[in-house]
Amino acid sequence: MTPGVRTHYPVITGQNGVFSMNPFEKVASTARQAVPLLARASAAQRDAGLARMAEGLRAARSRLLEANAADVEAARTAGAAPAFLDRLRLDDPRVEAMAQALLEVVALPSPLGRIDSLMVRPNGLRVGRMRIPLGVIAFIYEARPNVTSDAAGLCIKAGNAVILKGGSDAQRSNEVIAQVLAEALAQVGLPPGAVQLVGLGDRAQLAQLLQLDQYIDLVIPRGGEQLIRFVAEHSRIPVLKHYKGVCHIYLDESAPVEMAVALCENAKVQRPSVCNAMETLLVHRDAADRLLPEVARRLVDRGVTLHVCPRARAILQAESLPVLDATEEDWYAEYLSLDLAVRVVDGLEEAMAHIRQYGSAHTEAIVTADHGRAMEFMERVDSSVVLVNASTRFSDGGELGLGAEIGISTSKLHAFGPMGLEELTARKFVVLGNGQTRR
Amino acid sequence: MTPGVRTHYPVITGQNGVFSMNPFEKVASTARQAVPLLARASAAQRDAGLARMAEGLRAARSRLLEANAADVEAARTAGAAPAFLDRLRLDDPRVEAMAQALLEVVALPSPLGRIDSLMVRPNGLRVGRMRIPLGVIAFIYEARPNVTSDAAGLCIKAGNAVILKGGSDAQRSNEVIAQVLAEALAQVGLPPGAVQLVGLGDRAQLAQLLQLDQYIDLVIPRGGEQLIRFVAEHSRIPVLKHYKGVCHIYLDESAPVEMAVALCENAKVQRPSVCNAMETLLVHRDAADRLLPEVARRLVDRGVTLHVCPRARAILQAESLPVLDATEEDWYAEYLSLDLAVRVVDGLEEAMAHIRQYGSAHTEAIVTADHGRAMEFMERVDSSVVLVNASTRFSDGGELGLGAEIGISTSKLHAFGPMGLEELTARKFVVLGNGQTRR
Repeated sequence: MTPGVRTHYPVITGQNGVFSMNPFEKVASTARQAVPLLARASAAQRDAGLARMAEGLRAARSRLLEANAADVEAARTAGAAPAFLDRLRLDDPRVEAMAQALLEVVALPSPLGRIDSLMVRPNGLRVGRMRIPLGVIAFIYEARPNVTSDAAGLCIKAGNAVILKGGSDAQRSNEVIAQVLAEALAQVGLPPGAVQLVGLGDRAQLAQLLQLDQYIDLVIPRGGEQLIRFVAEHSRIPVLKHYKGVCHIYLDESAPVEMAVALCENAKVQRPSVCNAMETLLVHRDAADRLLPEVARRLVDRGVTLHVCPRARAILQAESLPVLDATEEDWYAEYLSLDLAVRVVDGLEEAMAHIRQYGSAHTEAIVTADHGRAMEFMERVDSSVVLVNASTRFSDGGELGLGAEIGISTSKLHAFGPMGLEELTARKFVVLGNGQTRR
Repeated sequence: MTPGVRTHYPVITGQNGVFSMNPFEKVASTARQAVPLLARASAAQRDAGLARMAEGLRAARSRLLEANAADVEAARTAGAAPAFLDRLRLDDPRVEAMAQALLEVVALPSPLGRIDSLMVRPNGLRVGRMRIPLGVIAFIYEARPNVTSDAAGLCIKAGNAVILKGGSDAQRSNEVIAQVLAEALAQVGLPPGAVQLVGLGDRAQLAQLLQLDQYIDLVIPRGGEQLIRFVAEHSRIPVLKHYKGVCHIYLDESAPVEMAVALCENAKVQRPSVCNAMETLLVHRDAADRLLPEVARRLVDRGVTLHVCPRARAILQAESLPVLDATEEDWYAEYLSLDLAVRVVDGLEEAMAHIRQYGSAHTEAIVTADHGRAMEFMERVDSSVVLVNASTRFSDGGELGLGAEIGISTSKLHAFGPMGLEELTARKFVVLGNGQTRR
């Protein structure tokens, strides 16, 4: 095995009677040491590393599929659901897609070293801000094995070392992937310790990793709300949190009916299992008779179950559309399924108050023909992505022009909303003088 | 007393047998409720609030000086040092300076609502990023009473509610100041709960405040390293940390002697007690004979004690200049006094390695006539402010063009280096469409 891709199982070992204080200290310090080497390399060299990673994944395909088959078999034996097994499974097209995703990151411009402007101060000093790597990122995820290469590629492109902790069900697959990625770095003269996979046994051990703030600059957890809350509560390292996506569409009084139908259908039905799908529909009371039957009919035709407020029920039952009564829990629900909460509101203020109370600060949209209300919604709704006359499904790094996405932040520090390469960097001040002193 | 300026002493009180879980919950939720009201106000209204604060401080001068005299007397009785008493003491010019500082913040452009660019995606969606308030900021400080109004003014200008915890020695002064600020907000129709002062008894109680991540978005501690480490270790809320400023100047082989002397004198002597003063001087070995005697003579003339490496000692003792031997601790030292560590290095690489090992990621400068080395230093030194041919003393929000400064971050998340109004905001995505759906 290449140094830097060893899977470090957190067995606390004693040497000469001295016990290591933290089983992850070696991994973390190896990552830390890789940072200046990675930062010092050229953008072309980092890109060459990513291109080698793509080649390496193609070359290791049979080994990877073998490891993955063992992961899938173990999960099946343990009684995993078919949908889970499908997410876990790799095949030829999926491995090729992993390689392609790395090559797409190669094609993005490097954010590093960029200085957007150099202002001149009255004393002649030129002052700018240069993009630099964040340092060491711990990426903790539960998802498909392809996330391993996607996340590592973005981190390396932005000059960061990454410590990966994937789902234990995908551990065999992830070990092969991480080994390929680290070897690719070594082949182009970059430190293989910039990509390391750790095998964590349980939450108590994860908590130990989260103490190493002297080595690790940022933790990005991606997975269920329980994992993210655990990380946020136990970390001494800053955490970019993504809780849930309870996304709203508000149909204003003036919303055109065809646009309302098309956007609601797209936002709810196109991919209901993801965080930017619509979960609650809010409708202005004066437009409810005009809009709600059309919108609801289309959604019901597409298999959606509606959980509605009493005012919506009166309108929809008159049209013989099937509905369930919404409970308080429905307004908080991230269904991730073909379910939708529906509420008639008295107007824009009540819609925004509903979003503030029940929303998750992720993504909200208004459908309106009225410019003033479009601007007011855009200005005042306090969520990471606010759309006017567009589907909530556009709340995605690729769709918003970031090139690729490492996650979505629903808290405001450092980044808010979809995070791309730029969000994996920091900025330092650079100052060019010719002998200036301060008075 | 106006609501919102009550000093909440953290006595856990029982009501009907139910004990409050966290004594600061009420303060924090009051601050949270103020946020949408503050964000919704116009920039003109927030500015009017700041101008009223300035008027209020002038009008409350005699009351404030009386409270301050009691603080000073209590500190004197407790045996505080004269320098400490001087920092604590307010007088007419200092109160006027507090009012003026608020008016200077009024004159700065509001960062809120700004969208720097609206890009067009291939599907016609316009995508931009709008500056919005962060939310609730807890500002924990030990310093002079003027920090109370300086920090509150910046937070309010950026649309944030602030919870202030000042030094206990300044508590009487701070109570008057906070009351004046909250009353000023109320007078212009803004929520007085946007500025609240808490009186915390001890560190255990501070730790309770730092648990309220459901209400507070950011903690900014300003004070000694011990305070900042305590906050970082006990906070569930993100913390903008400022540890120490061990700032370096590196005199390159090609450094012009007059510039080297002038910059070193300014960086060390102009105000030695602050975090952007030079603490270590590094000199290229091939320029040491030419530069070091001149630089050292000027510094010794200005009262500086030199803690030097053996190579520097050989050169300086030959010139009969007084020196002390540097120990390993000197390279880590933030003297904040007329002391300077001096080391001769083999070149740029060794200088950068020294900075990486002993520095605090705050501010470093190179003095050089060589363009290539200027660029290399600028690119590769991993500190929040990197200067070429300018004094480290320019590492300051005002000097770098930020208008005003709430602190300096020495970690990279969210902000790195001096933080102004912009660093007290976040950005959300805004997306303007005309019915786009995702395929």
